[in-house]
Amino acid sequence: MHLNFALRPARWLFTLCLLLPLAAHAAEPLPSWNDGASREAIVAFVEAVTDEQGKDYVPSAERIAVFDNDGTLWSEQPLYFQVLFALAEVKRLAPQHPEWKTQQPFKAVLEDDRKTLAESGMRGLMQIVTATHTGISNDTFEQNARRWLASSVHPRSQKPFTEMVFQPMLELLAYLRANGFKTYIVSGGEVAFMRTFAEEVYGIPPEQVIGTTFATRFQDQDGQLSIQRLAKLTHNDDGAGKPESIDAYIGRRPILAFGNSDGDLQMLQWTMAGPGRRFAGLVHHTDAKREWAYDRQSHVGRLDKALDEARNKDWVIVDMAREWNRVYPFDQDVNQH
Amino acid sequence: MHLNFALRPARWLFTLCLLLPLAAHAAEPLPSWNDGASREAIVAFVEAVTDEQGKDYVPSAERIAVFDNDGTLWSEQPLYFQVLFALAEVKRLAPQHPEWKTQQPFKAVLEDDRKTLAESGMRGLMQIVTATHTGISNDTFEQNARRWLASSVHPRSQKPFTEMVFQPMLELLAYLRANGFKTYIVSGGEVAFMRTFAEEVYGIPPEQVIGTTFATRFQDQDGQLSIQRLAKLTHNDDGAGKPESIDAYIGRRPILAFGNSDGDLQMLQWTMAGPGRRFAGLVHHTDAKREWAYDRQSHVGRLDKALDEARNKDWVIVDMAREWNRVYPFDQDVNQH
Repeated sequence: MHLNFALRPARWLFTLCLLLPLAAHAAEPLPSWNDGASREAIVAFVEAVTDEQGKDYVPSAERIAVFDNDGTLWSEQPLYFQVLFALAEVKRLAPQHPEWKTQQPFKAVLEDDRKTLAESGMRGLMQIVTATHTGISNDTFEQNARRWLASSVHPRSQKPFTEMVFQPMLELLAYLRANGFKTYIVSGGEVAFMRTFAEEVYGIPPEQVIGTTFATRFQDQDGQLSIQRLAKLTHNDDGAGKPESIDAYIGRRPILAFGNSDGDLQMLQWTMAGPGRRFAGLVHHTDAKREWAYDRQSHVGRLDKALDEARNKDWVIVDMAREWNRVYPFDQDVNQH
Repeated sequence: MHLNFALRPARWLFTLCLLLPLAAHAAEPLPSWNDGASREAIVAFVEAVTDEQGKDYVPSAERIAVFDNDGTLWSEQPLYFQVLFALAEVKRLAPQHPEWKTQQPFKAVLEDDRKTLAESGMRGLMQIVTATHTGISNDTFEQNARRWLASSVHPRSQKPFTEMVFQPMLELLAYLRANGFKTYIVSGGEVAFMRTFAEEVYGIPPEQVIGTTFATRFQDQDGQLSIQRLAKLTHNDDGAGKPESIDAYIGRRPILAFGNSDGDLQMLQWTMAGPGRRFAGLVHHTDAKREWAYDRQSHVGRLDKALDEARNKDWVIVDMAREWNRVYPFDQDVNQH
């Protein structure tokens, strides 16, 4: 009797120990994904590469998963959110730049002249991004980005941009990490901007965020140390730039990649070209009601060549309208069955 | 009785569960470090930043530790080992480059003409490194590096270069990781070379190896995908280049940094300039008998300004001869007390 009594806490703890892994497995993963081809393909892939007895087993250290950001982890309409940030920064900084009143493309931004702004094209956009993202220290830039993210809302949803993330993709990131994957962002977005929210919003730490970069310079001003951001683009992390940055930063080939546009094609190709079992996925924006519907004709996030290649090669194409029962965390799960 | 019997395996497992953490702590960490100022400072720092109740606590995600490689994790005499690799590659590749017979600095390499080679300086060295590290795919380069590392020995010890690593530093890396640190290499060495052995030798995966980089180009040749290495230096990861690459790759400031030369000074300064408790360490090569003795006058791994600053600021200076009872894993621990 004495012995049994003494053992009780031990028994209780031990039973709990046994049950915890069961509890963790009890909840079905990916609740915002409807049963269907994409969910099945994801689960089958993860189970195959984590099965130590199986022929497709991949050691945890090599379970590298890369995700595009704009249009893959959060929305990208009506414009990339980082471009909206840059436009807002032009307005905020205008008092310090009287010359912008007469100088394009800044004049167009200040006057909300969308036609002129659109006509300024990629060159105009780079001028706006450079003016708002460089010439300051990393600390100052980070403060600017955090201030905008905390104080701005999306023009349509009126929700903070960091809530315009895809609930099914948050669940996918968590599911992969729970299965020993290391999750990375590999995005055309500028890297320091993404790093200000990726850890809190996606659970992806700064060192696993890869993106477009400007040159920096370490500055020692009478013992005051800083990293200064220079007006010189050093890497455009789009298209072929993605496998290049994956090689530079990660140094090994991912086994899973997810994108949503032609800018992700080479990353998907590079991922699929390695040996062993691999996974390539595309988010297809088919949901005009809850998100947006666009692909081949879109000026933002165009999905054309990559859609053809995904179909030819049987990559996973996620039909957002049909396969996601919830798009944003703030959505009611109306479609849940 | 029946109940007790049934519980026996549970008790046994539970007891084991309780004992395992004790066993892990039972062995003293850092056995190759003699008792002394450096070992004490390391242990005190790690205990302070991992004590959740203490004022110096740092969450695990922010426990970033950066290490120089040459002279800090392995030896660097009589020349950086990667330079010895490049010289060997010139000889191996010479049949495909008949022009090298008459062209400096290659002629000097092929003729073992050390004087002319030394006179070719940094410019000559970069020609040799570029000729042997670029113009090929990453896969080919990796094969070349692995072949050399597997088949060559150090001119003095006659041991493979990957055994010329510092046993006390291997223990330090393991001790930090066991305490929730993420360990990085930040080295002037070219990154792809280091990544071929860092995981096996140091337990540092490729994505935590940062170094000097050449430009790369993603190549799709009729569906054959590769990363090509181009003859264009994009980052020299030395001096001020170290805090710059730390910011670019990690995106947050380390709390511990270890180096051994003036090329590590800015990395140490940057690490120490952040808020909260921090650690900066220098390996001081004082051991002519078991390794090498050099500092202010050395042409490889010169330690001059950083030594002064470390003394002024009370950074940890490891006196190799006095504080390490074993230098290499293959050493007898003659000095152990």
